[in-house]
Amino acid sequence: MSWIVDFRDGSREMRDLLGGKGAGIAEMTRVLGADRVPAGFTITTEASVAYLRDGVPPDGLEEQVDEALGRLERAAGKRLGAPDDPLLVSVRSGARVSMPGMLDTVLNLGLGDEAVAGLARQTSDPRFAWDSYRRLLQMFGSVVRGLPAGEFEGGLDRARAEAGASVDTDLDADRLRELCDRFKLIIADAGDPFPQDPRAQLREAIVAVFESWNGARARSYRRLERIPDDWGTAVNLQRMAFGNRGETSGSGVAFSRNETTGAPEPSGDFLPNSQGEDVVAGIRNTEGLDGLRERLPEVHAELLAVLETLERHYGDMQDVEFTVEDGKLFLLQTRAAKRPAQASVRFACDAVDEGLLGRPEALATIDAEALEALLHPTFNPEDEPTELARGVPASPGAAQGAIVFTAEKAVRQADAGEDVILVRRFTEADDVAGFHAARGVLTAEGGKSSHAALIARGMGRPCVAGASALEIDADEEVVRVGETELHAGDTIAIDGSTGLVTVDEVELIVPGISGEFERVLEWADEIRRLGVRANADNGEDAERARVFGAEGIGLCRTEHMFFGSDREELVREMFIAGERRRRAEARSADDDEVERAETAFREALDHLGELQRADFAEIFRAMAGLPVTVRLLDPPLHEFLPVSHFEDALEDAEEGEAADEARARLALARELEETNPMLGLRGARLAVMFGEVYEMQARAIVEAMLDVGGGGERATVEIMLPLIAYETELALVREMIVRAVEGALESRSETVPYEIGTMIELPRACLVADRIARYTDFFSFGTNDLTQTALGLSRDDAEGGFLSVYLERGLIDRSPFQSLDTPGVGALIEIAAARGRGARPALRLGICGEHGGDPESIGFFEEVGLDYVSCSPYRVPIARVAAAQAALAAAM
Amino acid sequence: MSWIVDFRDGSREMRDLLGGKGAGIAEMTRVLGADRVPAGFTITTEASVAYLRDGVPPDGLEEQVDEALGRLERAAGKRLGAPDDPLLVSVRSGARVSMPGMLDTVLNLGLGDEAVAGLARQTSDPRFAWDSYRRLLQMFGSVVRGLPAGEFEGGLDRARAEAGASVDTDLDADRLRELCDRFKLIIADAGDPFPQDPRAQLREAIVAVFESWNGARARSYRRLERIPDDWGTAVNLQRMAFGNRGETSGSGVAFSRNETTGAPEPSGDFLPNSQGEDVVAGIRNTEGLDGLRERLPEVHAELLAVLETLERHYGDMQDVEFTVEDGKLFLLQTRAAKRPAQASVRFACDAVDEGLLGRPEALATIDAEALEALLHPTFNPEDEPTELARGVPASPGAAQGAIVFTAEKAVRQADAGEDVILVRRFTEADDVAGFHAARGVLTAEGGKSSHAALIARGMGRPCVAGASALEIDADEEVVRVGETELHAGDTIAIDGSTGLVTVDEVELIVPGISGEFERVLEWADEIRRLGVRANADNGEDAERARVFGAEGIGLCRTEHMFFGSDREELVREMFIAGERRRRAEARSADDDEVERAETAFREALDHLGELQRADFAEIFRAMAGLPVTVRLLDPPLHEFLPVSHFEDALEDAEEGEAADEARARLALARELEETNPMLGLRGARLAVMFGEVYEMQARAIVEAMLDVGGGGERATVEIMLPLIAYETELALVREMIVRAVEGALESRSETVPYEIGTMIELPRACLVADRIARYTDFFSFGTNDLTQTALGLSRDDAEGGFLSVYLERGLIDRSPFQSLDTPGVGALIEIAAARGRGARPALRLGICGEHGGDPESIGFFEEVGLDYVSCSPYRVPIARVAAAQAALAAAM
Repeated sequence: MSWIVDFRDGSREMRDLLGGKGAGIAEMTRVLGADRVPAGFTITTEASVAYLRDGVPPDGLEEQVDEALGRLERAAGKRLGAPDDPLLVSVRSGARVSMPGMLDTVLNLGLGDEAVAGLARQTSDPRFAWDSYRRLLQMFGSVVRGLPAGEFEGGLDRARAEAGASVDTDLDADRLRELCDRFKLIIADAGDPFPQDPRAQLREAIVAVFESWNGARARSYRRLERIPDDWGTAVNLQRMAFGNRGETSGSGVAFSRNETTGAPEPSGDFLPNSQGEDVVAGIRNTEGLDGLRERLPEVHAELLAVLETLERHYGDMQDVEFTVEDGKLFLLQTRAAKRPAQASVRFACDAVDEGLLGRPEALATIDAEALEALLHPTFNPEDEPTELARGVPASPGAAQGAIVFTAEKAVRQADAGEDVILVRRFTEADDVAGFHAARGVLTAEGGKSSHAALIARGMGRPCVAGASALEIDADEEVVRVGETELHAGDTIAIDGSTGLVTVDEVELIVPGISGEFERVLEWADEIRRLGVRANADNGEDAERARVFGAEGIGLCRTEHMFFGSDREELVREMFIAGERRRRAEARSADDDEVERAETAFREALDHLGELQRADFAEIFRAMAGLPVTVRLLDPPLHEFLPVSHFEDALEDAEEGEAADEARARLALARELEETNPMLGLRGARLAVMFGEVYEMQARAIVEAMLDVGGGGERATVEIMLPLIAYETELALVREMIVRAVEGALESRSETVPYEIGTMIELPRACLVADRIARYTDFFSFGTNDLTQTALGLSRDDAEGGFLSVYLERGLIDRSPFQSLDTPGVGALIEIAAARGRGARPALRLGICGEHGGDPESIGFFEEVGLDYVSCSPYRVPIARVAAAQAALAAAM
Repeated sequence: MSWIVDFRDGSREMRDLLGGKGAGIAEMTRVLGADRVPAGFTITTEASVAYLRDGVPPDGLEEQVDEALGRLERAAGKRLGAPDDPLLVSVRSGARVSMPGMLDTVLNLGLGDEAVAGLARQTSDPRFAWDSYRRLLQMFGSVVRGLPAGEFEGGLDRARAEAGASVDTDLDADRLRELCDRFKLIIADAGDPFPQDPRAQLREAIVAVFESWNGARARSYRRLERIPDDWGTAVNLQRMAFGNRGETSGSGVAFSRNETTGAPEPSGDFLPNSQGEDVVAGIRNTEGLDGLRERLPEVHAELLAVLETLERHYGDMQDVEFTVEDGKLFLLQTRAAKRPAQASVRFACDAVDEGLLGRPEALATIDAEALEALLHPTFNPEDEPTELARGVPASPGAAQGAIVFTAEKAVRQADAGEDVILVRRFTEADDVAGFHAARGVLTAEGGKSSHAALIARGMGRPCVAGASALEIDADEEVVRVGETELHAGDTIAIDGSTGLVTVDEVELIVPGISGEFERVLEWADEIRRLGVRANADNGEDAERARVFGAEGIGLCRTEHMFFGSDREELVREMFIAGERRRRAEARSADDDEVERAETAFREALDHLGELQRADFAEIFRAMAGLPVTVRLLDPPLHEFLPVSHFEDALEDAEEGEAADEARARLALARELEETNPMLGLRGARLAVMFGEVYEMQARAIVEAMLDVGGGGERATVEIMLPLIAYETELALVREMIVRAVEGALESRSETVPYEIGTMIELPRACLVADRIARYTDFFSFGTNDLTQTALGLSRDDAEGGFLSVYLERGLIDRSPFQSLDTPGVGALIEIAAARGRGARPALRLGICGEHGGDPESIGFFEEVGLDYVSCSPYRVPIARVAAAQAALAAAM
């Protein structure tokens, strides 16, 4: 087994084996020539995996390192740690993907008490030699031996103080020599003395890098970035280039373009007379690349040429580390530059215009997820608002307004033209009207998947959730944060992209889709196969979705139309009367009783039907020419009949008949309360119990279509039935809808095309998808509920609860509600897609859960061959780009 | 397409095409000769399916009927409805499986005003002729035309009254002729007159039989018996044999053995001078076969010979219909005799002893489900107790005792040696101790799958659930039923096999496993491949399970050990302290606070550990030599911390520190309350949050094993982890358990073998079974939870709620909690079994949900190749027989 690859033998394709840094160095060696890149070799990730598995370095590793080092020594004409003219090396980690600052680095290995003297003699620069030794001791002590970094920093501070020096470059050789002695003492006091044998230094350093993979920081970083725990890290041994050899030396980092704006001007940092870590550590103030041009114009020109070469070679913006040793430029690392969304869009466009990249390649350089930042209002970046509290950034965008504590007041004050922020401990279904009215939502409890977060994201309302410093007393209409007390009407501002809450007056900046962004989206549309629709429940959202390029509505939730001050009462009347009728019929009560209930039921239904009809018309108008998928009523019955409401009503009722009625209603609400509403009387089950409600909705949809008119240019409607488990219930409810629709059309002697499809959101539905496909024109995967049932997780209970502990302990790497659980939920989707299409090849397949806007999940949906994804309006542009990237990935 | 099969061309193998009756007649024609069976033919089930599909008789049917009728006429030398000597026929339905009384029959077809005179002349028996016509008119009017049967019965009553006759045989020809006129008027008044054309009679009658398939009674019967709606029914046209030709004629039914006891003596009913329907209708008192022997000894002897021939031929107890016409015996139908469990066991044993059947064939004649009746106490069948109320027969067996209204009192009074019946509106988790103490459980709410029903069945306690006539006021300790008022301490008796509730003093009969039953079970054990274990949570149940032949415990639920007066307090302390510690650690509280919580947590844990250790020891003792699967704690955390308890505690707390503490506890309980506890913090998730609880349980198990000792003869333990979704959590918890077990063994320097396995009860676990199999020794399918998650159904909410409506409306044919939903849940089990065994061929597969005791589900588990089923102790014998039958079916 070979554990070692020489830099001259590697390439960028070998990233898995060599790590990102090793592959980058190897590639640079090939592209820029061996002159520009100090020689060395990489110990492969396989060696680290073997070490982490067995707890000891793998057989043969030490011999192979010796051999490779021998070659390095022969090429350099120097020996590691030789007392006369020592070869020094760096040992640097490098995983497959960049984990900045997480893994370990040791420079100047090979120095010892004798070699430092030799280096001083050989370079005639004792200061440089002792500075290098000091650095080695400091890094070896803290990184390899794990001693507190502060002890060494403290020593350095003291030495500077004693010398009256402000920066470390002002320390002379003698001071540095004393410092080395101190550092050696620190190391020896803690255990073994610093090893003078350079091979021993090397052995320890390599093992330290291996082990840094399992350091606490590295582990938590991996979890955040979803990097598998079993990758391990490569170790790079490289001949030192010295940036600390005086004023014609230095080290720095540089970007091939401006890393903030993407503008085509290289930028970066340079620190004269320094070694690599100094730039990052911010020990001294760095100079820009202008400083380098002034000091060393030739090196500056060389660097620009190198940056251009590398960018052209890689076809992406580069971020390099370099060292200048006595006027000679060395490159130590190159990688794709991380950049904000604006810069990535700018680069993609410029790269196409410059002929550097084709459109697909340019598109592939963009991080789709990050694009969200371009779509929401933000605080003016010049403002630096004071933090009142901080919560979970639950729905992006910034908002400012007057505090309101109830949905009702949010609606009332918003109607009066006021900007309001809805502030609640947590939110529930009947707060939804308030979401719509408010500019933003702030809660003290809950996380990224709380009700507040989900609804806010769905509506594109900024939301900060779980700002636990807030003590909210809704009855008193007071929020307390420490000493601060805020009342209803006070101004507050939130940034849902950062979680910041402030009472400062802030300026909000509302970005549009820039010309460059628009270009990128057009390319995406040319490339992608997946359709992109939006989840939108009203005309305003539908219009916004259209602006963002949605090709239709994939999910219009009709229950949001059931909430709102004018409707809740009506909805309660409807269900109470409906349930009373059902019970009266079941126990064969007298006709009078049945009829009374029936009349009340019909009245509420008709009234609600009229209201829904107007809602639908608004949406259909906004979506002229595009498909609109309307999901019929879904939530648990008991959500519409909250026990607390009826308890209050009973308290308020006057004695006598009114009180009897209030008691009867409360009793009914209690009976309908469910232990597990998620798995209870909801979705199509409501239609089996109260068919008239779905019929009313179906009629309202058709009448709205006819009201809007528009002939061929009108929206096309797809009626969707939720929570189907059995093909028999689907057949029954489908038949019911068809009758209602045909009845409504007949009574107006008109006709419109329509389709009837189902949500697939229960495991059983996936397994019997062939049977279900017989009665449906399309499937739309409801991945939220499918995740809940497949994993046996209640989102409301799990997120913020045990699921966060699962994340902390590394049992899962991301919430299954954020990114699709492909082995479980994904497998069900694959089964359903295959069985459904097997039974009905023309079956259209979409997905309308939260995952429809998640780039990683979109990659999976492309693989499985769905027809479209549907996501919240604000994520439509992201989905367009992600869908294109997925198509490109699939074509590879 | 041929729609007709002559009786001489059919056989018993053609049951699907000819229906049960048609196939039986054809087979009898072959076995007994054409002399014993009136000639005729069958219109196939395919014709009825075509009719039901198209709404009109299929093309060619009428011609084929004409042709077949022509052959019948030629053979008989008579013509249908001919005025001189008419041929008469019966038209009788006959589905694939018997649906007694559900479908239609018309006798004496072919008579009319002219033919009746001819028949009178030809037979010289006008009374017989007019009686036959009267019968035809009555059946035609009620059955074919759907007129109220009461109108005809009323006419008959009036005629009898006018004639001063007590029974219809006392009516003479003239009276019967008048009656015929009245009946014709009734028919004509309601629409078309009675058709005099015999072909028209036939056409109408055939269509009526076709349509009777979709009658309300037939549909509800099919649902109960799980008969598919699309089978349709055959129609049998058969030459009439007349039992109403005087005293040497008659009709009857007979069994080849005693139908109640199974004793090898034929039994039956005979009614002289009657037609078939009279026997069933109970118009006159029938005579036993003794009556037949006295009247017509030769016919009696012939009948016995026929019964023996048929029983031998079919290899099963037969139930025949016969008619004697003028001293000549005709057989009209034969089928396997329905019989109670005792008789079926007796027959099986006798049949083997007599050499009639081999053991496998004998076993196949038993209805495994019905065997339950042999295992539970019953009311003395001689008593006929007055019904106070009736509920759902939720858990079989009868019980009698003093009424108690709380679990606590049940425990206290039972400890004092009293027999008690726990009476509650509904039950919850903390009533479980009461179940154990009580002789039986009675609730006013809930159905077959209510908590009360499930727990009662699991414990083998009789239970009547949902006796909605009971108004229970537990505070006042009163039950009201109409005018009756019962108080705590009053005696009440319930029969959980029938749903009867009575206040009569009753005698309880406790059956053992009879010698014959024991023999049958031994054969079953020889034949079956599936292992049969029991679900048992304590020593007593374990012992009972062993008596019933369980080969181990497949599910020992440890949470039941957490309830009970001495433990609940301890459990609450444990979880409150545990959660406080967790929170203190998470927010890095000071060490004092963490330590206080830690100490309280440990104390409660240790105490509970000691108690559990004793519980386990009891079970292990009972199960010496057999495997015991112990499931670690499963239910939602919040079930142990009910908010109402802490509300009460706060009310009771004195002001000051105690009140503060009570408030803090209440707040904690509220925070831990879950929206959907079924999908919340439970199962292995508890171990991720509070690992020490599982460790405590693992230690208690091991210590109990060591306490019991016994060397090779001791029980072997299989520790089972519930609600696994992720292989990562399994790996973590498994590791935790292994450490605890090894620690406990080490500290005693002993060793016992043990295994660690998982429940498979979430869809995700099925789909990633290959990954999960890496960390587990066995899978045990928890089909209850798997059904809940796969179907998105909360058992607590759905049963008694919308699921009953689904059943009523025919959307499902049985509750998925009663019999496994094979297309959905079954498919998941198949996937899990295949993937699990793919990854680990030695993986043991069992099932421990309610379905483990359901014969139909056992058939599926045999097909899928599971290793064992586990069910409640009382169902173990049923499962043994069902498993053997499944093995026999699989071998065919």
